[in-house]
Amino acid sequence: MSQSSVAHSTFSIEREYPQAAAKVFQAFSDPVKKRRWFAEGEGFIVDSFTIDFRVGGKETCLFRIQEGPVAGQICRNDTWYMDIVADRRLVTAYNMTLGDNRISSSLSTVELFSLQDKTLLKFTEQAAFYDGADGAEMRREGWRFLLEKLAKELGG
Amino acid sequence: MSQSSVAHSTFSIEREYPQAAAKVFQAFSDPVKKRRWFAEGEGFIVDSFTIDFRVGGKETCLFRIQEGPVAGQICRNDTWYMDIVADRRLVTAYNMTLGDNRISSSLSTVELFSLQDKTLLKFTEQAAFYDGADGAEMRREGWRFLLEKLAKELGG
Repeated sequence: MSQSSVAHSTFSIEREYPQAAAKVFQAFSDPVKKRRWFAEGEGFIVDSFTIDFRVGGKETCLFRIQEGPVAGQICRNDTWYMDIVADRRLVTAYNMTLGDNRISSSLSTVELFSLQDKTLLKFTEQAAFYDGADGAEMRREGWRFLLEKLAKELGG
Repeated sequence: MSQSSVAHSTFSIEREYPQAAAKVFQAFSDPVKKRRWFAEGEGFIVDSFTIDFRVGGKETCLFRIQEGPVAGQICRNDTWYMDIVADRRLVTAYNMTLGDNRISSSLSTVELFSLQDKTLLKFTEQAAFYDGADGAEMRREGWRFLLEKLAKELGG
């Protein structure tokens, strides 16, 4: 019998932001803001980024990494909005694709909890990694990095 | 601070079928076959069932339960195809909605392993249940029931 081609994994990250939940939520719903912290960054060329922010709507990000073993390859993040509760919850399903290889599908949950003037963000990823690609530890680090970029976006 | 409105849960079910993987896969990809074992059933009225079987395509099932506390309410299963590898793997993201209430979003993985003339199906669900609704144990029983109906579809 062949081995499983899927590795399932779940992880959570919590992070506190010194802003109100409505402001944190806006960094996900506003395409200009989200592009800034989520898609743009040193070492990446963003070819396109589109958001249709409604349940059933799609977000697509096409980008290239400038250096390293996958330099120049088209990377895609295809995201479908599964559940949206303003200022409180955002659940998406997304595929990561590198060149012609789909490396993962995930369900990701962002929950926002108001703590007076602050917000606790709880991020949970339930992922299926394909054919030995990627891996949960790298993905967790990727999201830690993004949630740090979100802090800078909110503080700016 | 308010409590989390999401309960995350992962479960797997394995089941062996005395048919080849290609035949088992077809019961997912063929809209007529899938409707028979997945949507139709005693106690349900299926109002519509559509499949667009390609990555990024959608499957929608609208149905009503005939008896019990939610009798007559419109139930929806909205499914997005995330990954398709013929005769081997099928990954979907789906929302379950009861009336106006979304009760869950899930990532579900079907893996097929060939064992000579038989097939081992491994089903994994990574679910987010909303606002106390539904629950993993009921969902697992629901899928056990569906995988039993699949056995009947394949045997017929």
